[in-house]
Amino acid sequence: MKRRALLVVAVLGLLALGWLAESHFAAGQNEAAATIKGWKAGVGWGWIWGKDDEVGALNAMTDQSRAAALKLAATGKVYDLGIAYSRRSYKWPGHSPGEIMSFRSPAGEEAQKESVVNPMGNSSVTRWHSNALFMNDNVATQIDGLGHITISADHHWYNGFKEAEHGGDFGIQKCDNVSIPPIVARGVLLDIAAARKVDELPTGYPISPADVDAALAQQKVSLRPGDVVLVRTGTLRHWGTDGDNHAKIGQHDSAGITLQTAKYLVERHGAMLIASDTSGLEVNPAPAGSNSFIPVHKYLLVEQGVHIGEFHYLEDLARDKVYEFCYVATVNKIQGAVAGFTLRPLALR
Amino acid sequence: MKRRALLVVAVLGLLALGWLAESHFAAGQNEAAATIKGWKAGVGWGWIWGKDDEVGALNAMTDQSRAAALKLAATGKVYDLGIAYSRRSYKWPGHSPGEIMSFRSPAGEEAQKESVVNPMGNSSVTRWHSNALFMNDNVATQIDGLGHITISADHHWYNGFKEAEHGGDFGIQKCDNVSIPPIVARGVLLDIAAARKVDELPTGYPISPADVDAALAQQKVSLRPGDVVLVRTGTLRHWGTDGDNHAKIGQHDSAGITLQTAKYLVERHGAMLIASDTSGLEVNPAPAGSNSFIPVHKYLLVEQGVHIGEFHYLEDLARDKVYEFCYVATVNKIQGAVAGFTLRPLALR
Amino acid sequence: MKRRALLVVAVLGLLALGWLAESHFAAGQNEAAATIKGWKAGVGWGWIWGKDDEVGALNAMTDQSRAAALKLAATGKVYDLGIAYSRRSYKWPGHSPGEIMSFRSPAGEEAQKESVVNPMGNSSVTRWHSNALFMNDNVATQIDGLGHITISADHHWYNGFKEAEHGGDFGIQKCDNVSIPPIVARGVLLDIAAARKVDELPTGYPISPADVDAALAQQKVSLRPGDVVLVRTGTLRHWGTDGDNHAKIGQHDSAGITLQTAKYLVERHGAMLIASDTSGLEVNPAPAGSNSFIPVHKYLLVEQGVHIGEFHYLEDLARDKVYEFCYVATVNKIQGAVAGFTLRPLALR
Amino acid sequence: MKRRALLVVAVLGLLALGWLAESHFAAGQNEAAATIKGWKAGVGWGWIWGKDDEVGALNAMTDQSRAAALKLAATGKVYDLGIAYSRRSYKWPGHSPGEIMSFRSPAGEEAQKESVVNPMGNSSVTRWHSNALFMNDNVATQIDGLGHITISADHHWYNGFKEAEHGGDFGIQKCDNVSIPPIVARGVLLDIAAARKVDELPTGYPISPADVDAALAQQKVSLRPGDVVLVRTGTLRHWGTDGDNHAKIGQHDSAGITLQTAKYLVERHGAMLIASDTSGLEVNPAPAGSNSFIPVHKYLLVEQGVHIGEFHYLEDLARDKVYEFCYVATVNKIQGAVAGFTLRPLALR
Repeated sequence: MKRRALLVVAVLGLLALGWLAESHFAAGQNEAAATIKGWKAGVGWGWIWGKDDEVGALNAMTDQSRAAALKLAATGKVYDLGIAYSRRSYKWPGHSPGEIMSFRSPAGEEAQKESVVNPMGNSSVTRWHSNALFMNDNVATQIDGLGHITISADHHWYNGFKEAEHGGDFGIQKCDNVSIPPIVARGVLLDIAAARKVDELPTGYPISPADVDAALAQQKVSLRPGDVVLVRTGTLRHWGTDGDNHAKIGQHDSAGITLQTAKYLVERHGAMLIASDTSGLEVNPAPAGSNSFIPVHKYLLVEQGVHIGEFHYLEDLARDKVYEFCYVATVNKIQGAVAGFTLRPLALR
Repeated sequence: MKRRALLVVAVLGLLALGWLAESHFAAGQNEAAATIKGWKAGVGWGWIWGKDDEVGALNAMTDQSRAAALKLAATGKVYDLGIAYSRRSYKWPGHSPGEIMSFRSPAGEEAQKESVVNPMGNSSVTRWHSNALFMNDNVATQIDGLGHITISADHHWYNGFKEAEHGGDFGIQKCDNVSIPPIVARGVLLDIAAARKVDELPTGYPISPADVDAALAQQKVSLRPGDVVLVRTGTLRHWGTDGDNHAKIGQHDSAGITLQTAKYLVERHGAMLIASDTSGLEVNPAPAGSNSFIPVHKYLLVEQGVHIGEFHYLEDLARDKVYEFCYVATVNKIQGAVAGFTLRPLALR
Repeated sequence: MKRRALLVVAVLGLLALGWLAESHFAAGQNEAAATIKGWKAGVGWGWIWGKDDEVGALNAMTDQSRAAALKLAATGKVYDLGIAYSRRSYKWPGHSPGEIMSFRSPAGEEAQKESVVNPMGNSSVTRWHSNALFMNDNVATQIDGLGHITISADHHWYNGFKEAEHGGDFGIQKCDNVSIPPIVARGVLLDIAAARKVDELPTGYPISPADVDAALAQQKVSLRPGDVVLVRTGTLRHWGTDGDNHAKIGQHDSAGITLQTAKYLVERHGAMLIASDTSGLEVNPAPAGSNSFIPVHKYLLVEQGVHIGEFHYLEDLARDKVYEFCYVATVNKIQGAVAGFTLRPLALR
Repeated sequence: MKRRALLVVAVLGLLALGWLAESHFAAGQNEAAATIKGWKAGVGWGWIWGKDDEVGALNAMTDQSRAAALKLAATGKVYDLGIAYSRRSYKWPGHSPGEIMSFRSPAGEEAQKESVVNPMGNSSVTRWHSNALFMNDNVATQIDGLGHITISADHHWYNGFKEAEHGGDFGIQKCDNVSIPPIVARGVLLDIAAARKVDELPTGYPISPADVDAALAQQKVSLRPGDVVLVRTGTLRHWGTDGDNHAKIGQHDSAGITLQTAKYLVERHGAMLIASDTSGLEVNPAPAGSNSFIPVHKYLLVEQGVHIGEFHYLEDLARDKVYEFCYVATVNKIQGAVAGFTLRPLALR
């Protein structure tokens, strides 16, 4: 009981700090003086890229911004930010289950006396493996597309695309994976767990603007408009080989940023993509009084056109205290899919 | 009839050139003087990385090699080498079909009166999309893993991993996608179609070492050990939006490298990964007298431990005459999968 | 050319006979004098079973009607009316493809060193097979449920169930397979091909009321209210092992009943279920001027609440001239599914 | 603690009765005097139907036997023995998960502007539903085929069919669902729970020959060679709508027949198919000292060629004290499938 009380006090204290930080928002001068296409301090991004746009804030990338980001990769060291997915992996219960099924196997090909290939020219007994996959497009390391979330009775998503016109039986017809460009940008790690001196944040911990500031201060790094911001809770310490410890992962997976923090990162700091090491980025459940069960998703994806990264593996970066790097990620080019899944984003330095 | 005769003469001529080139092999001095971990001129790579190795020639990558490759990306320009996949896309008939199915939809969530989320805190009517995918791990832009192909009665693959021990119902247990590291390396385009002055190579055209040399000469570029070599036939000119013109794609998809050429690239030039813009890289069908219906796959994957890239979109690179660049690719991190699929490898320059 | 002209004349002649037959409708006295729950001559069935009803005309079955039907099965001879389905089988192109995938295999279980079962108590090396199926619920021998088809802008089906309320992501919530009761009823074969003295009806042949009358006359059998009526075109002569001859099957699969004939069978004869040996029962394409591309489906399923049977194998019945029998069919009890699939209805006599 | 002791005593007592019963085996004269094709008292069935046979004991059915069984259906009353399956249903953890996914929906067809049908002749706005199913062939009400189980290092099943020759990637090539004939036979319910005066048998209860005898005596019914024997534990009292109470179902699902009882039913009484209301028919786990983790499956399927029924819903029969009836079941006609699934066997009386 005592520990719980302490925890409550600690959380309230952190929230209070967050509040203070927020009241400094307007006056705060971050170094995001640098201008960047599309972003406006105090406002963020939004539906500014034309009525047919499906790309959102990622439109801010230019050859120049990519070249600058790639310069951060001077040593050639690469960090794989993906986690391995299997049929046993932890995932949000609303998604479909997954199976990786041996579809073609050497012995199977022999038993079924396949005629797919020419057995006459095959004295080496060449056979092949392929798999049939049944899986969800929201599993393991992800980048949520701008059509993942809808709001209002007309079920519209980013830029006003409406379900009745752009939905369908085979995924979405606007803002699907095909429309997500390759992402090459400066990446910054915010190691919130380290800033708060814990191995991983506790269940339901709401990451506040003050937490962001504390991490920035401790890490001696600053944010710039156009950054990919990676927020570490420490949850993926428990992924293990393939995320089969659902209880342990689930315990910490609920820590995440609040709507205030999302706004702080986008409107004050110009974040172009925000990612975390949890399945949902934002604190769960949403605070009482929210107008959505996932207000951060609603704000980032629908209102700001800012993509979300989930289940990014940040343990190696944290261990090596690598806070600034070149972030590279590409989603599968699948028509209709709403998110990149089982990805391996890279941190190059 | 006349045109056909001309074509035959042309092909025979090119083959003859290839033969000449081959006889120069041993003496040929390419500039691959540079030493690289693991590779030996005249031999290539092979099973040299230890009995538990699942990585093959990609072990040759180092921080230094990656840093050097990344230096090629000075302008920040990025080429997306992936092609869009849909239920209609062309693929090899031996693979399973694919569907991208709307699994969760805004209207569906309302009709089924879901309790997955809390409707009380959702005055914004937030809903979500996710898809269930049924697809094969050998579709669209791919990187074949080293366990894709087996040979001999014991069905072993690279490094001697045997089906009875490392196969199974859920994909392969050695050399699966999880074991394929992020690939960051110097990439070189060999625009064979341009070297041969055609829009795309004809059906069943066998790309010879002479074709490689002709492209290198015309492009004024040379190969170095550790390169990712991208061989352009021009087939993907016909991909269109999502590869639904099966007849047209199929017509050119059979052009590809011969076993001689694979050896030339690996043993003389030190290629670390060879990719093409077709579904199978190698000429199809295999030449009469081959001991496998896919001798290039057998040689590269099983014997040399060299990964294969397929359906890489090279049209933009060819148009801009970009022959040297930094190649970056990551496969989905799915346990048991034998190939990266629906990828977007990048060419950065 | 001459043969085509003859065919046209023949078809027109048959149509004319149909027209004559139709004009006799009102006056026609069929022996359906027998009263049956729910059915009214000249009207048929319809939405008469209460506003929550999901069963339709099948409500007409009673212990008495079933007992009478079962009496027809005096010899114990059984006809299997199902056709075998495989990944190669012919199906309507709008449906999802199908795969039957070995999910658990003896060798797989050994390779993956499964812990699902206790290896200590297994000296007999017991292993097991199971399959994962990916398939559509509208393949092979089917019984279409009353929710298969919707009409109007509100997308309602039988009894006014609307998509917005009773649809969803996981199939339909009204009139799904679970709501289809076991069917045990008198079955009558109408061998239209035999009546018209052909092996199978030609492409697009529209089966008219006159065809029905011709078959009844030739077979010396009559229809009664509550019957399951099986209409033979002869198409399934070409199914072979598993329906892989798509061209041949497709050629004849378009023969079928017209809307007039559907009305004739339901409103004059009291058919409770109408089935055929094609994938769609009705003539395809719909006659010019139809208000639906499948007017018979619309009429039977939506308006009359009469289930439809498809791809029923009638060759053995036809060969043995079995025209009256006990029909027994049960659909898979799968929540949300809209049709019974890969069924084996029985004709018992 | 006391209750547990009582339970142990009770179980031991019942087992002792079983032992006594068993010692009476040889001498016991059941009324199975009636001869039946293939069956031999004291021996059962076995591999007696020829080396190519895939049907096993079901070969014993004849027109005569079916006609006799159908005579039991005099009242026309029908019992549906199937349970409803959904994505939430209880199943054995070794099987693949299941989804019923709306594949074609009215709104989807509009959004994707489908060209599958002719919109010009569709003023009624006809649309359609179909579903894509991903499911296992061992779920809900099942009939296990003779190829479900393999034994020995050569992984052979009934009649010596071997994996290397008759297995494969697409299910089994011998004894698959296509080879299972329609089943029409006398059915007898053994209400063991009622005989033992419990609502449902306790966890892990081993049903003995004495239990069989007790039920037969109390029900005043006897077994005959060729019967389908249905053994009630009471487990499915807890199925509810779609089997989502996994804990409660799992608690009772482990009750089942022992190997002794299987032999008693087959070798003494001539059972042609044995079914139960659990997922596995036999007591689980197998008794210490068994040579298989599922010795009853091994015995019935592999050695005797006797099909197994699982998850048959017997509550209505038990409530109405219907102990003798005509059992009718047909499995889906799917090539390669190893079991009938989501079935609705019927009990007609």
